[in-house]
Amino acid sequence: MDNMKSVKELTRIMKADSFKMASLSADVRNKILARVKEVLIANASKIFEANAMDMDKAASDGIAQSVMKRLKFDEHKLEDVTKGIDQLISLPDPIGKTIFKRQLDTGLILERVSCPIGVIGIIFEARPDALVQISSLCIKSGNCAVLKGGKETTNTNKVLFELIYGAAVECGAPEGCMIQVTAHNEIDELLECNKSVDLIIPRGSNQFVQYIMNNTKIPVMGHADGICHTYIDKDADIEKACNIILDAKTQYTAACNATETLLVDRSLDKEALKKIAKNLEEKGHVKLRGTKEVNDIVSVELMNEDEFNTEYLDLVISIKLVDGVDEAISHINTYGSHHTDAIITENAKTAEKFMELVDSAGVYQNCSTRFADGFRYGFGAEVGISTSKIHARGPVGLEGLTTYKYKLRGSGQIVGDYASGKANFNFKDL
Amino acid sequence: MDNMKSVKELTRIMKADSFKMASLSADVRNKILARVKEVLIANASKIFEANAMDMDKAASDGIAQSVMKRLKFDEHKLEDVTKGIDQLISLPDPIGKTIFKRQLDTGLILERVSCPIGVIGIIFEARPDALVQISSLCIKSGNCAVLKGGKETTNTNKVLFELIYGAAVECGAPEGCMIQVTAHNEIDELLECNKSVDLIIPRGSNQFVQYIMNNTKIPVMGHADGICHTYIDKDADIEKACNIILDAKTQYTAACNATETLLVDRSLDKEALKKIAKNLEEKGHVKLRGTKEVNDIVSVELMNEDEFNTEYLDLVISIKLVDGVDEAISHINTYGSHHTDAIITENAKTAEKFMELVDSAGVYQNCSTRFADGFRYGFGAEVGISTSKIHARGPVGLEGLTTYKYKLRGSGQIVGDYASGKANFNFKDL
Repeated sequence: MDNMKSVKELTRIMKADSFKMASLSADVRNKILARVKEVLIANASKIFEANAMDMDKAASDGIAQSVMKRLKFDEHKLEDVTKGIDQLISLPDPIGKTIFKRQLDTGLILERVSCPIGVIGIIFEARPDALVQISSLCIKSGNCAVLKGGKETTNTNKVLFELIYGAAVECGAPEGCMIQVTAHNEIDELLECNKSVDLIIPRGSNQFVQYIMNNTKIPVMGHADGICHTYIDKDADIEKACNIILDAKTQYTAACNATETLLVDRSLDKEALKKIAKNLEEKGHVKLRGTKEVNDIVSVELMNEDEFNTEYLDLVISIKLVDGVDEAISHINTYGSHHTDAIITENAKTAEKFMELVDSAGVYQNCSTRFADGFRYGFGAEVGISTSKIHARGPVGLEGLTTYKYKLRGSGQIVGDYASGKANFNFKDL
Repeated sequence: MDNMKSVKELTRIMKADSFKMASLSADVRNKILARVKEVLIANASKIFEANAMDMDKAASDGIAQSVMKRLKFDEHKLEDVTKGIDQLISLPDPIGKTIFKRQLDTGLILERVSCPIGVIGIIFEARPDALVQISSLCIKSGNCAVLKGGKETTNTNKVLFELIYGAAVECGAPEGCMIQVTAHNEIDELLECNKSVDLIIPRGSNQFVQYIMNNTKIPVMGHADGICHTYIDKDADIEKACNIILDAKTQYTAACNATETLLVDRSLDKEALKKIAKNLEEKGHVKLRGTKEVNDIVSVELMNEDEFNTEYLDLVISIKLVDGVDEAISHINTYGSHHTDAIITENAKTAEKFMELVDSAGVYQNCSTRFADGFRYGFGAEVGISTSKIHARGPVGLEGLTTYKYKLRGSGQIVGDYASGKANFNFKDL
């Protein structure tokens, strides 16, 4: 934070002003986004310079090359985020939508109208493009935001935040509508602000998200782990299965939607399993782990039943044979994390059963679990993926950042008249 | 509970079988409801006998007459609940609705489909009709339910539960899809079942709901307090104002949607305030409390600013003068509980501002705050009223008991092809 006020005090002020933010017109919110895009482009060299400092520091700290890639904010990333902003501007306004309108009685009209949630705290990994995406989503949805990014990109984040926040206030957003917290101990402070923060969205490791969930009274939206499954049914097309599982496991192993466990129908031809395993090992350099039964067919590292709740986030996969779709479903519901699970089958009926009964945010047929993503779902961007069944589920875009209120317009109606029978409800959807 | 298994074990089994409950067809769920109605009517005398035992016990325990009324389950209440069941049967199925359908690319189709939440724990006050309503809502929405009713109606609840559960299983619901817990210590046990219970809905006193919210990792939906306001604007019709505030305060003082604070525009004619106050005192026997400024106009018991967060649930009201709609809004957002708040004004622009900026589940113009209720909103019934902004807000009917999942059907698509540019997304809403 750039000034001496505590997180508690800043969020208290933010909450009080969140109604001003909420009542900005769609036009003003889109103008802010357009201005954000302009200032990012105009200040590109300043952003790249700050990013170079972060990259130098990361290199001298010996941070792994794969992580370095995420820290980088270059011409290419700038183009991505400005494209994202354009897409957001073009999306319909999520706020002020009448979801339904109903006459309760003559002259007594109920409306349900979407509105912003209010104040949202987002704690995210060291990825400068995430900062731009998240703050743009909050602007478009009329929410105030408390942002805490990963420390490895402190310099880049500082420049990006100042540009975005400056553009917002310049175009009419209330002062204090966005703040950035930088010190790690401020996370704990934020978690105590249940009077003023309406929602916390944590992104990061399982352990970190669990910590957040266990240490705040504020509702938390997100996912702690992503134990995704791909189940290969006896009616699978083996070519498709080979391709899909290779992609689901290896296309980006660190992602929450990467497949961690491969379930295979016991009645599937043994040669098919051999082919799938070979493809994973040879093309994907994936280490195979599995039960003794699997090991009788292809050579794997033996594992116990209770290890099937492992999220590797690495080139490792668990393999198990199951008695058809029923056991696959029950295995996934028991060991999975209700994130995203896929079935590979050409049998529509089997697929339907799987998709009906697997209790996950995403249930897929014949495609890679890696598709679970706000951009790939056409949401423009995402603030995170939720495995909770309350509020938003799956990739969360603009809609997950809104709530609604009921507006009731009358002309003097009182409940006593309806209780006594003097008046009667006359429901009619309008 | 009727057997020796622990709540933890029972909910574990319930969770595992919740997918069977979720996959019952709409037809079967409606058949269960029709059967519930039949068995309730056929066993009316058995229910009334059990209720007579509860009423006798309550009378000998010296329970207040106003509470006794709620415990009673007679011919009239039976008619109400069976009417409610008929209404529920006639409502459209909340489950399996395709909320949207989108092509991500040729042959890659995303659908968002509504589904039950799973296992819901509901802790409710001693009102036998509530047991019938809540379990009917859970059946219609395909959810499993753990029910804990107030102890004062133990006998009635036992008979009602057995009839409803029996009807459910008879018509095809899985065994164990509903359980009733009766011992108070089982509430604490239930709060620890975060692996198997998806949502807790507590109804009861502020203190009780707070206790639940502070002692579980399970998401909680409900409201701790109902500090509702009615604001009388300078452009109010005083006749309407008199009627509405009298109803809002006195029609049912123990309800969470009763008005607790009356805000009056400082520029309103003093005679108008006198008239409103006299009406409350004489017709409603309401004790007035207010600031010194109010006391200069009408005689009130003096109160301090920090007492405006009081929920009386009694024939008492707080009164304060404010500088027009702006101060009314900020007072409500500061001292209110985000439940339901009304403005009395003939000025559409002022009303619009109030309804836009008051941060509550219900914002009303020219009608009583007592309208905040699932039945009065035309939802058939409610499981509770939510003041949370996450998931359902306001009176919660069938829709609040559902979530959704994303179904993605492909034909071998992998993310690698889209990342490399070999394939491109081709979004199209279907």
